[in-house]
Amino acid sequence: MVRNDGRNARSLRPVKITRNFTKHAEGSVLVEFGGTRVICTASIEESVPPFLRGRGTGWVTAEYSMLPRATHTRSSREAAKGKQSGRTLEIQRLIGRSLRAVTDMAALGERSVYIDCDVIQADGGTRTASITGAYVALVDALTSLVTRGLLAAVPLKEAVAAVSVGIVSGSALLDLDYSEDSDAEVDMNFVMTSSNRFVEVQGTAEAEPFSSEEMDAMRALAMDGINQLFVVQEEALKQC
Amino acid sequence: MVRNDGRNARSLRPVKITRNFTKHAEGSVLVEFGGTRVICTASIEESVPPFLRGRGTGWVTAEYSMLPRATHTRSSREAAKGKQSGRTLEIQRLIGRSLRAVTDMAALGERSVYIDCDVIQADGGTRTASITGAYVALVDALTSLVTRGLLAAVPLKEAVAAVSVGIVSGSALLDLDYSEDSDAEVDMNFVMTSSNRFVEVQGTAEAEPFSSEEMDAMRALAMDGINQLFVVQEEALKQC
Amino acid sequence: MVRNDGRNARSLRPVKITRNFTKHAEGSVLVEFGGTRVICTASIEESVPPFLRGRGTGWVTAEYSMLPRATHTRSSREAAKGKQSGRTLEIQRLIGRSLRAVTDMAALGERSVYIDCDVIQADGGTRTASITGAYVALVDALTSLVTRGLLAAVPLKEAVAAVSVGIVSGSALLDLDYSEDSDAEVDMNFVMTSSNRFVEVQGTAEAEPFSSEEMDAMRALAMDGINQLFVVQEEALKQC
Amino acid sequence: MVRNDGRNARSLRPVKITRNFTKHAEGSVLVEFGGTRVICTASIEESVPPFLRGRGTGWVTAEYSMLPRATHTRSSREAAKGKQSGRTLEIQRLIGRSLRAVTDMAALGERSVYIDCDVIQADGGTRTASITGAYVALVDALTSLVTRGLLAAVPLKEAVAAVSVGIVSGSALLDLDYSEDSDAEVDMNFVMTSSNRFVEVQGTAEAEPFSSEEMDAMRALAMDGINQLFVVQEEALKQC
Amino acid sequence: MVRNDGRNARSLRPVKITRNFTKHAEGSVLVEFGGTRVICTASIEESVPPFLRGRGTGWVTAEYSMLPRATHTRSSREAAKGKQSGRTLEIQRLIGRSLRAVTDMAALGERSVYIDCDVIQADGGTRTASITGAYVALVDALTSLVTRGLLAAVPLKEAVAAVSVGIVSGSALLDLDYSEDSDAEVDMNFVMTSSNRFVEVQGTAEAEPFSSEEMDAMRALAMDGINQLFVVQEEALKQC
Amino acid sequence: MVRNDGRNARSLRPVKITRNFTKHAEGSVLVEFGGTRVICTASIEESVPPFLRGRGTGWVTAEYSMLPRATHTRSSREAAKGKQSGRTLEIQRLIGRSLRAVTDMAALGERSVYIDCDVIQADGGTRTASITGAYVALVDALTSLVTRGLLAAVPLKEAVAAVSVGIVSGSALLDLDYSEDSDAEVDMNFVMTSSNRFVEVQGTAEAEPFSSEEMDAMRALAMDGINQLFVVQEEALKQC
Repeated sequence: MVRNDGRNARSLRPVKITRNFTKHAEGSVLVEFGGTRVICTASIEESVPPFLRGRGTGWVTAEYSMLPRATHTRSSREAAKGKQSGRTLEIQRLIGRSLRAVTDMAALGERSVYIDCDVIQADGGTRTASITGAYVALVDALTSLVTRGLLAAVPLKEAVAAVSVGIVSGSALLDLDYSEDSDAEVDMNFVMTSSNRFVEVQGTAEAEPFSSEEMDAMRALAMDGINQLFVVQEEALKQC
Repeated sequence: MVRNDGRNARSLRPVKITRNFTKHAEGSVLVEFGGTRVICTASIEESVPPFLRGRGTGWVTAEYSMLPRATHTRSSREAAKGKQSGRTLEIQRLIGRSLRAVTDMAALGERSVYIDCDVIQADGGTRTASITGAYVALVDALTSLVTRGLLAAVPLKEAVAAVSVGIVSGSALLDLDYSEDSDAEVDMNFVMTSSNRFVEVQGTAEAEPFSSEEMDAMRALAMDGINQLFVVQEEALKQC
Repeated sequence: MVRNDGRNARSLRPVKITRNFTKHAEGSVLVEFGGTRVICTASIEESVPPFLRGRGTGWVTAEYSMLPRATHTRSSREAAKGKQSGRTLEIQRLIGRSLRAVTDMAALGERSVYIDCDVIQADGGTRTASITGAYVALVDALTSLVTRGLLAAVPLKEAVAAVSVGIVSGSALLDLDYSEDSDAEVDMNFVMTSSNRFVEVQGTAEAEPFSSEEMDAMRALAMDGINQLFVVQEEALKQC
Repeated sequence: MVRNDGRNARSLRPVKITRNFTKHAEGSVLVEFGGTRVICTASIEESVPPFLRGRGTGWVTAEYSMLPRATHTRSSREAAKGKQSGRTLEIQRLIGRSLRAVTDMAALGERSVYIDCDVIQADGGTRTASITGAYVALVDALTSLVTRGLLAAVPLKEAVAAVSVGIVSGSALLDLDYSEDSDAEVDMNFVMTSSNRFVEVQGTAEAEPFSSEEMDAMRALAMDGINQLFVVQEEALKQC
Repeated sequence: MVRNDGRNARSLRPVKITRNFTKHAEGSVLVEFGGTRVICTASIEESVPPFLRGRGTGWVTAEYSMLPRATHTRSSREAAKGKQSGRTLEIQRLIGRSLRAVTDMAALGERSVYIDCDVIQADGGTRTASITGAYVALVDALTSLVTRGLLAAVPLKEAVAAVSVGIVSGSALLDLDYSEDSDAEVDMNFVMTSSNRFVEVQGTAEAEPFSSEEMDAMRALAMDGINQLFVVQEEALKQC
Repeated sequence: MVRNDGRNARSLRPVKITRNFTKHAEGSVLVEFGGTRVICTASIEESVPPFLRGRGTGWVTAEYSMLPRATHTRSSREAAKGKQSGRTLEIQRLIGRSLRAVTDMAALGERSVYIDCDVIQADGGTRTASITGAYVALVDALTSLVTRGLLAAVPLKEAVAAVSVGIVSGSALLDLDYSEDSDAEVDMNFVMTSSNRFVEVQGTAEAEPFSSEEMDAMRALAMDGINQLFVVQEEALKQC
């Protein structure tokens, strides 16, 4: 089966990670999954939220947003509406949990990392691109602590990346773009670490419930895809 | 392995569904999963939200809340704070998607069902108890449309129920209570229909990422547990 | 004159108070005035709001809410709208003042009691049922402080209860249900202590202003009704 | 007993009503009860809120506010805080109900009157001064409809005014100023029409519950005081 | 050219400043620019906002509002809408900056002055009237600190006042009233100190961009007008 | 005088305008003024706000935001705080007015253009860069209406661009970067059309009031700078 952009079912879209995309953040990455483009920054603050004070451990949290015209039709600005949508909150909670899962909070010490994922162009998979790019921004931000002599080593346990899979017209496909996502019967997102263990799995039947066999097929595709993403992350981190 | 309430790993807590719990709603159920107690009502309105008007199809949506003292320590009231938490929004979106998945929207016609799940006592698994109870309230509300002659048949495709599973001290356990949930390394929620197909799967590594094998073990437990819940739902629906 | 549920003008509806209705709160009561059912919990916190800190006296405050489908037609959820209505604020301020009036704040010491009144089914008189039930929850919560050795005696000066009266078709009636309330020309709520003195009196002409004589007639009915409620409270508190 | 400003227990403070205080509103009054000064405007709009459309009847509603420095110490601005306090909502609902009670909504026709009561200086009794002044502004606004030929007669059934009474050091006093109000054991507000019937009665035990006899004493004082206010209103309305 | 109220292009409307307009504020002024009437109060608080604590310097800030019926048609109340408009925020920021520019913050010491400008009647130029009146209220409030022995001298560097100018039908006019403002092609506001230097200049082309020459003509008118306002301020401050 | 980046007082920073920066918007531009980088999109909607319906004229409006880590230290996200700051509202109103000033609303017809300016990296002058870039995005969006045959000609009257000027250590400097802006005694923003007429002029004395002569010097610098910006805009628009 050939997909509308010529890919086969098991292929990722072209993935590109540009480090140091903006200059102020300790980590700043532009991540692109095909037409999806997200600016991921990681900002260090030398304090933790009140509920963690005095425990000697750190904190990683995330916020997510889309520019109003990241999408085909303009969506209204959440700051103007005065509240974040359920979708936004759900995604930023997912990103935060995913990155906390690979961070050694005790080694980080009493400081926080704020991850900001701002989608400047959306074409499906914005949350998985965000996680994949944010990991690289997090590495850069944490490395800056080592460079500045504040930490002896980067407090990360392993890498983390994410990809979406779906069932479209009965076939499992890796890394859906927007038009595929709109047609998908099932949509799953997998967040996995470099030891090939899962941090988050979220599957939703958009049109038709799915069987255990379909879940297994999607999982296999996702595991393969995420392992490709680890290679892209490593390549990006090698450059300076 | 014996759990703190004497159950084994594959056992549900005592599950009880009381229909007609309050008198005004078209469907009103008190669902109890052990110490977790949730009032689920289903309310019919003879209109649909603006984005669906004129299409001839219906709508099912859900809202979720916990009474401030449903929990061990009092949590502040969302109405007083002026906003719903990300957790609340995430759960009510999940409940809504789960029930929409089994409803025949075309057969329902241009009317809406509002599901309200209000937790009066929380002891783990409030979202899965909510979905399981809300299905029964939905059946009652839709049946009232048939009784009143507005529909020829109840517009449901199959039953839906949900359960949590988790990994505690390395073992997969079904239907975690609050104390188990607090200790769990991994927490997964499965929403499944009576054809044993999944509507939603959500897994989160709270402390340690999980392998494909662990995911499979949790899925097996969940499928077994949800099939027990279908029996409880059916029993409840037999009574009048 | 016989009322639609067979009562006479001077009769309360059946009143029932169930203690220990939920398990986490220090005091938890289900109060029923006929078809009106309210969960009242009293939660102890070992601190006071900032404006009272360091004075050695305590605080009692209340919040009130109705489940969306407590009523004939579903009302929208205040947490979802992001603000509490004027009616809600007015009622919860009334409940708080009523309970503070009988509490010995100095004897309570620097701790707070949060009263939560959540209406699960509404059929008129939700605020008066809330006050009557909340008093029992408050007794239980304060008694728990004595039991735990934190206080020598329950810091309450006397009992408090409340009832509504109204003028319907020219006659004064005690404890209006929803259908009577909708038809009432005048609606009054009396909150009285066991020494037969008033804490709050609120009368509103819904359709027609009322005379001094009518006010006197309503007051007499209310005093009689509240004395009956004190008996119900005492009976409930005798059980263990 | 002589009060701190030389009045006796049964005396009002000097009351002054200035019509046409600002130029844009159909009715605009500055009302002064001693040091309490409130601008009351009545604005006509040729439409009614959605819930009344098509019924041929009118609507009267009220909003209340205090300038931040109307009080001894500056209070924060509700517009800046983004929400109105419970006290504000309670008072504006009271003002609205009081004026609706004397308005003939059918005769008014499908139009609305918005009453705005803005306290520019507060010295006790702001809600009762607001009601008393707003009635005059309402007369002026409704008269403008007659003058413009839109109504045949002013659609008011009778006059309405309000006063506070309280028990201070055991004595019932009429029309409390701020310092008396701060010391009062009981605070009652009476809203009465010119047929000497009550629209609203609100009594609150601030420090000590009150007896039926005390309530009667306060009511007698209030009735006498409000009848004096009707004279002031009439005098003001005679001027042009 | 004669304007609709008989003024010529270079004339201010009648300007009146009434001190001690309300009794609680340390400085309280009613300022009138023709039909525009604003209550300006200055309130002293013996603390500064967190970002200034411990620096030994003071703070001056302002809030602005219009009563709902200050205008021809009633505008909705910002406190009821739950947010201040962009226009309100812009104006109050302007007032705050203007007064801070002439205050010696070090000499003021760690205390704050809150300026409240509440428009009770609007007829054009409310922001410039607010600044002009607020300066006098500020003088009075700061003088009270000297009187109470808390400061040796009034910590003001010079006077400040403001006026609007505009281009109407091609002519530059001073101090536009509402009807002129509605017709203006260009609207400029100048805030100037008594050393004839500018604190704020804001020009907006409402209908047609404006040239350097037009800007110069407006500036000349404004400088002349503001110098007249300084005389009015001084006269007001001479009275006691 | 040489500035810290080697420029002289009359020089702009390097200005770069990249069209078609994102793919969904009708106009999408990345504008860079030195280290200040702003994504400006222009989105067409085939409707106008309610207050303009039925008049046959169009509407142009703008929203402005900064990514949280566009700045040296992370600022909190306005969507998360639930409200836009006064600064944000002020800037987006300025951008909207500036673009409306050069648009022929009658020729545009009943459709709206939404301008979104999102700062991804801030280094001074974000509002002037936004206006300058937004004009190019607006040209592209309006040209798309011509291309699609919906309009006969691009409904723009002339070009518009903006620049900041300031007085730093007594010298007037063009196009301040962040470090200069922080030290400036005076900050002015000029928005000018290609006929060298002004749409907006805003000057603020940050530390010291400024004289007419200083204002004239700043204006001369600004006019020269904006004329350079018109050349950059034209160059960008020539490319395809």
